[in-house]
Amino acid sequence: MTVYDIISLKRDRKELNRQQIEFMIDGLIEDQIPDYQVSAWLMAVYLNGMTDSEKWYLTQAMLHSGQVINLNEVDGIKVDKHSTGGVGDKTSIILAPVVAAAGVAVPMISGRALGHTGGTLDKLESIPGFRIDYSIEKYKKMVADVGACLIGQTKEIAPADKKLYALRDVTATIQSIPLISASIMSKKLAEGIDALVLDVKTGSGAFMQEYNQSVSLAKSLISIGEQAGKKTVAYITNMEQPLGNAIGNWLEIVECIEALQGKGPDDLMEISHTLSGTMIWMGHKAESIDHGIEISKEMIASGKAWEKFLDIVEKQQGSTDMVKNPYNYPAANHSLEIKSPGAGYIKSINALTLGLCSVELGAGRLKQEDSIDPEAGIFLHKKVGQSVARNEKIMTIYSQRSDDFENISKRLISAVVVQNTPPEPQKLIFEFLESSERN
Amino acid sequence: MTVYDIISLKRDRKELNRQQIEFMIDGLIEDQIPDYQVSAWLMAVYLNGMTDSEKWYLTQAMLHSGQVINLNEVDGIKVDKHSTGGVGDKTSIILAPVVAAAGVAVPMISGRALGHTGGTLDKLESIPGFRIDYSIEKYKKMVADVGACLIGQTKEIAPADKKLYALRDVTATIQSIPLISASIMSKKLAEGIDALVLDVKTGSGAFMQEYNQSVSLAKSLISIGEQAGKKTVAYITNMEQPLGNAIGNWLEIVECIEALQGKGPDDLMEISHTLSGTMIWMGHKAESIDHGIEISKEMIASGKAWEKFLDIVEKQQGSTDMVKNPYNYPAANHSLEIKSPGAGYIKSINALTLGLCSVELGAGRLKQEDSIDPEAGIFLHKKVGQSVARNEKIMTIYSQRSDDFENISKRLISAVVVQNTPPEPQKLIFEFLESSERN
Repeated sequence: MTVYDIISLKRDRKELNRQQIEFMIDGLIEDQIPDYQVSAWLMAVYLNGMTDSEKWYLTQAMLHSGQVINLNEVDGIKVDKHSTGGVGDKTSIILAPVVAAAGVAVPMISGRALGHTGGTLDKLESIPGFRIDYSIEKYKKMVADVGACLIGQTKEIAPADKKLYALRDVTATIQSIPLISASIMSKKLAEGIDALVLDVKTGSGAFMQEYNQSVSLAKSLISIGEQAGKKTVAYITNMEQPLGNAIGNWLEIVECIEALQGKGPDDLMEISHTLSGTMIWMGHKAESIDHGIEISKEMIASGKAWEKFLDIVEKQQGSTDMVKNPYNYPAANHSLEIKSPGAGYIKSINALTLGLCSVELGAGRLKQEDSIDPEAGIFLHKKVGQSVARNEKIMTIYSQRSDDFENISKRLISAVVVQNTPPEPQKLIFEFLESSERN
Repeated sequence: MTVYDIISLKRDRKELNRQQIEFMIDGLIEDQIPDYQVSAWLMAVYLNGMTDSEKWYLTQAMLHSGQVINLNEVDGIKVDKHSTGGVGDKTSIILAPVVAAAGVAVPMISGRALGHTGGTLDKLESIPGFRIDYSIEKYKKMVADVGACLIGQTKEIAPADKKLYALRDVTATIQSIPLISASIMSKKLAEGIDALVLDVKTGSGAFMQEYNQSVSLAKSLISIGEQAGKKTVAYITNMEQPLGNAIGNWLEIVECIEALQGKGPDDLMEISHTLSGTMIWMGHKAESIDHGIEISKEMIASGKAWEKFLDIVEKQQGSTDMVKNPYNYPAANHSLEIKSPGAGYIKSINALTLGLCSVELGAGRLKQEDSIDPEAGIFLHKKVGQSVARNEKIMTIYSQRSDDFENISKRLISAVVVQNTPPEPQKLIFEFLESSERN
């Protein structure tokens, strides 16, 4: 077996077997296979796809390139959630304390900001002192003690994914459902979970903008989860407009604090409760998803989720004082209100444009080495369906620099469509998928 | 414009423009684009193809990565021939002196043995003293003085091709018609030719084994030639069995000597005269191809081609004594007669197997750094259609080592099919193509 043969087989649309896929991933990790061969293979995978078996072998090879965490010491069913990424998507920070408060352990290894979307780790790090770089031993202990721990990917977890992703990133092979699936699932399966809820975003602010593609990705992820023997379900959710009102790291933490105190915006709460309710159900602490959602709401109403959040912040060395008094946080140097040029109803707010603008304001990274401004971002005063008067403020932008405000304002205004009549109400959750049925 | 965009466009089956293709090739040559990006692009080209315009831009970018030789100082129309490679294909060495003797200059930059096929340069170098490493200035002078010069690719000629080929070779992207076409034509157009005859081989011993693929390659090459303003025609010729009776470097030179003295085997002479006749016609020294073929035969019958060959050998510092007395050449250390296990008629002789065996005997290279044994090879005493008695010799093999003779004999015997009845006569030349008509 040679790399050349494996590339040729995939090039010719032949199915690779387990040995061939392991040979490729092991060779990549051990620097036995040069990048130029891996990238030719990646393009062949991108263009010719992978069967369910190939995706499963690839996931396993990537999973076993690193450590697979064993959480058997933690009682009960461990459940995590993964979102494919969106603008203003901060549900992890709300649902982890909610689900943990309901008695279901949440082992959560999160990611950083990517492209136009924010990252849970960057958001959490905007809390003064908050650490995400714990060892796997410490992580296991915190999941056992607190019921939830939110850390970053350590170098022990699926190192093959890191190398493969770096190569995909420069060879235009990111947007491949088999490669995305194996990347996500190898990291999730390494966490020590028993069950997984997927939030697959669709629409302008999602990585998968086409609905059919989002469904295919969800099915692909479920198929891998089921092959791994982990109960896996997925929601296809709307990412046409940003989720909630806040975009940007500290702005989103404030929205999470409000959400955990029962004052979260409707769309954010609907998605959060659906995901956490499903997790509570999968963790066998509810008889149905609806029952789980009831429990989720109760956790917030009773203050138990808020207490759990403070507990997590404290254990991860974050400032509970700041979280309790978020308005003490240093303000951004510059802010600007964006006003509506016309009157009517908001028909749409392009999430992609808002995500890209928030990156430029400092909330994300244009280059990997860029640092993030925790205060930077966009706050939406209006959402789709709401009425707006001429010159009424639609959003406020925050940044440490104002030199690009004029250009960014223009782009933000053009991202909002106002019309005379109220638009059709948008669905927030399109579909729930739980079997591995194929098209 | 970024490499990423160019890879994405080709990945998405979009047509690249001239700037984009130049950016890719210039970046490759100047080491501005890493190999892993070039190889992802190559796989996308392999799988998604290229339009005629893209092939032409790629050929031009590769051509202009190096020097384009100007042969304006040489009178008349300069015509070359290119073969896509086969087993026992030594026509270049016969037709160059024939065509030059007929008054048409032949500027010929040849290649080395590749895979199971021999290389004109390796064959010529089996003539003691023969040099193929002249400078471009010397090459121009020799084409002007002698009417033909057979040299190797200098580093000034299409350096992009060398780099791209090395990458294709390890990424399973060799067998791509657009990439093959640009590779061949960039080197041929650099020679300073006015017209080109292509011998596109088809069958077991050819790189393109499928007839339709051979025709597609021929049409692709003609299209590029026509876009370059060079009259280009192609023959699709049979490479099911080896051409002529000799395979191996010095064995083939001896067959060329005999051919130039009027004693060449029928199949070799038919292809040689067709190609040289076409070249003489394209060089305006004949009124038709048939007339060109008559002249070609006359050049051999009159001894003029033989004299021209001696002239070329002398000018390129080869031993004319050895060429005049080829049987003085040192014999291979070992030889073995391969005998027919049965009686009947030869139905087929698999050219690929014979090519691969001759490489193992020492006539080619398994690895790039291998040296070639000039004496090694296979001589066929029988060809397709001829009758054979049981135990009658079919071939003789020659090598400096005999340790693998048993295994090679078995493979050679299995490469020959003998049947009771005479087989249908095989066509040697299937098709002549001269316009750029598409399917």
